[in-house]
Amino acid sequence: MKEKPLILIANDDGITAPGIKALINVAKEFGDIVVVAPDSPQSAKGHALTITVPLRIDETDIFGEIEAYNCSGTPVDCVKLAKNFVLEGRKIDLCLSGINHGSNASSNILYSGTMSAAMEASMEGIDSIGFSLLDFSMKADFTQATKYLKLIIAHELKNGPKTGRLLNVNIPKIKSSEIKGIKVCRQANARWKETYREGTDPYGGKYYWLSGEFINYDKGDDTDIWALENNYISVVPSMHDLTDYAMLDKLKDEMKTL
Amino acid sequence: MKEKPLILIANDDGITAPGIKALINVAKEFGDIVVVAPDSPQSAKGHALTITVPLRIDETDIFGEIEAYNCSGTPVDCVKLAKNFVLEGRKIDLCLSGINHGSNASSNILYSGTMSAAMEASMEGIDSIGFSLLDFSMKADFTQATKYLKLIIAHELKNGPKTGRLLNVNIPKIKSSEIKGIKVCRQANARWKETYREGTDPYGGKYYWLSGEFINYDKGDDTDIWALENNYISVVPSMHDLTDYAMLDKLKDEMKTL
Repeated sequence: MKEKPLILIANDDGITAPGIKALINVAKEFGDIVVVAPDSPQSAKGHALTITVPLRIDETDIFGEIEAYNCSGTPVDCVKLAKNFVLEGRKIDLCLSGINHGSNASSNILYSGTMSAAMEASMEGIDSIGFSLLDFSMKADFTQATKYLKLIIAHELKNGPKTGRLLNVNIPKIKSSEIKGIKVCRQANARWKETYREGTDPYGGKYYWLSGEFINYDKGDDTDIWALENNYISVVPSMHDLTDYAMLDKLKDEMKTL
Repeated sequence: MKEKPLILIANDDGITAPGIKALINVAKEFGDIVVVAPDSPQSAKGHALTITVPLRIDETDIFGEIEAYNCSGTPVDCVKLAKNFVLEGRKIDLCLSGINHGSNASSNILYSGTMSAAMEASMEGIDSIGFSLLDFSMKADFTQATKYLKLIIAHELKNGPKTGRLLNVNIPKIKSSEIKGIKVCRQANARWKETYREGTDPYGGKYYWLSGEFINYDKGDDTDIWALENNYISVVPSMHDLTDYAMLDKLKDEMKTL
């Protein structure tokens, strides 16, 4: 009998976040699950690594029968420790990250610890999927898209190229019956317009607290933002080669005399 | 008379690092410099943002006549605060980040706070350059490549598209006379192979401390790693659209029945 696939699960909202529990519930029928997740919220940590202090990792029974570890580091640290210690020498068939509390569509992929965990695994040649629900609430309903999440996971286990394909999957905050389907799309040209809340701390010091709104500058109907606004689940194939190939030859030409 | 260009300088090694001082010395002849840099080392912070605690920013005379601010946040926070407060309403002509103590070639761009600061500015449409020297030492000699750094900065001020072009510039650790020139190239397919130092803390707790070596899996002679190994300064045009366009149509086709 064929061995069950080995599925690593991470996130950035921390091991006690409802989103990771929801993801485990969706994924557990597909293989052997091992969870390595941060012991505290690590939202917006991007691809940060912990290098100046040592890391801790401890097994936990928080998910009952499911093998799980909490880690003092960032989401990327979790994946590195999973690969090097928890699953040392074992082949990881798929890495799942999330379900994130809040959107990681468009340029949010850069800030997102959830997507960075998936990207770190993809850099190691492991097919990976990051899932995010467009609802920040700790009481968000993560079950509305279960049917589609199962389709995507089953698809990647069967058809993934086993070379580290990375999918950024976002789920609109709507009822199951309103979801129109899955749309494969590109990353929208959209970004945060910051507003900072200015204040004075109890000791008279001035502070600035980041907030903002996310603005879409992209009129295309082939983007993740468009898909989400039109009640689709968005799937963006993403990558860690940041070379701007469209600019490469132009710049070579420009700089040849330097 | 035309106004002097406004140049924002950031880094990730912190405002007291020798590398940022070296960059200011190189850049100051090209325009009005404003420095906003972390008040502590922020290496390997990637594109991390500070969202759960407020930020502080204070003016400092550490660079004499040069306008400078230290900030309690990450490199990306520094750029956001620079744009929203320090330089509110002013047009930033160029953002420079670094000079980083250590390589940011290849996939290091993802982990690097120095490159993330430059990328954040580029996302705002500001042409940006991240500089890194392949020498981790705090006593590194940042002056060997001065001639070339000036050429690159002058080139971008004159020829930059003003749409947020992002250049990842790495400098080999060799003498000025050994530098063969500038090579525009793509990001090599290379990544870290981790080793963790395992130890026991004074209280009996087990810890893991990240280390590793950087392995190049790329045989191409058109990569940044190749350029650096062959005594060139590498320049990789980079971008924040992470869509894997080569995969997009294939995945659309694969998933059309889901």
